[in-house]
Amino acid sequence: MGSGKVIWRLSIQGGNESMEEKVVNAIQDEYPDDFSWCYGCGRLNSDGHHFRTGWDGEQTVTIFQPEEKHMALPGFVYGGIIASLIDCHGTGSAALALHRKNGHEPGEGTEPPRFVTASLNVEFLKPTPDRVPLKAVGTVQEIHPKKWKVSAEVFAEGAICARGEVVAVVMPDSFLKK
Amino acid sequence: MGSGKVIWRLSIQGGNESMEEKVVNAIQDEYPDDFSWCYGCGRLNSDGHHFRTGWDGEQTVTIFQPEEKHMALPGFVYGGIIASLIDCHGTGSAALALHRKNGHEPGEGTEPPRFVTASLNVEFLKPTPDRVPLKAVGTVQEIHPKKWKVSAEVFAEGAICARGEVVAVVMPDSFLKK
Repeated sequence: MGSGKVIWRLSIQGGNESMEEKVVNAIQDEYPDDFSWCYGCGRLNSDGHHFRTGWDGEQTVTIFQPEEKHMALPGFVYGGIIASLIDCHGTGSAALALHRKNGHEPGEGTEPPRFVTASLNVEFLKPTPDRVPLKAVGTVQEIHPKKWKVSAEVFAEGAICARGEVVAVVMPDSFLKK
Repeated sequence: MGSGKVIWRLSIQGGNESMEEKVVNAIQDEYPDDFSWCYGCGRLNSDGHHFRTGWDGEQTVTIFQPEEKHMALPGFVYGGIIASLIDCHGTGSAALALHRKNGHEPGEGTEPPRFVTASLNVEFLKPTPDRVPLKAVGTVQEIHPKKWKVSAEVFAEGAICARGEVVAVVMPDSFLKK
């Protein structure tokens, strides 16, 4: 338990070496198809952001490269995208934590629990530069067997740009439209 | 001051009469080009949501029809889209309120003040149905000449689905990249 699940990958860009960070085993990769349509994090939503959340030791990590269109003003990322990142990072982190509590890790192929967002709070600390990957780092706390709190910090080039909190609850059965 | 700026428009859809609500004079229509690129509410961002916020008496209103791709699960709207709606509804509402305090209304052609989001809180009250317009209704409160609080409720088919709060601050000059 608690081993890192984020790797560093070496890539060559324009002749310069640079490090690219990537989540290997993401919880969203293991949701059943019916639950994989989320515009934020669903692997089957071809127009979505495809946020992917995994463990990095005892913390959770989601990495996202905004597109140019996701701007507030030229040069800076739109706050709604940062809020979306924190939202899906929160539900993904809660799913990771309950899955681990149940004895499982992403990558094993065991169907994980799913969560929905009860509340989302975001503090925007400074303008967030575009064209660099954003990294959300989360700490998960159980406040009830079906209700988990995720505190998140969002970094760009190592500098904190936003801080947030998600309260996520286990998805009620009624949420899936028949 | 305080006259309604939202009209009801009659349209014919599939032989059935239905009412379509539309904001006529939106604050975002009057931002200068340099400030009209926001993915949420910028009129020049061709890929964005084009949220438009106007007065309805003493309250502010933003109406948005999510696209099918903006789903959490089939049938329900993604929370990040609702958070984005509340975010831009908040900054737009603050801009409307300070513009009115300065003696102006959207539609006059006077350049309005612009705001950025300091914090965003969203409570998701129930799954939000897709394929119907969402209506954010806001109440604005001045807490400092440069800092305004906007309380918002989001409705779908008359039912409240989410509640939020935005603290918006007058955009610092440094935000515009030279």
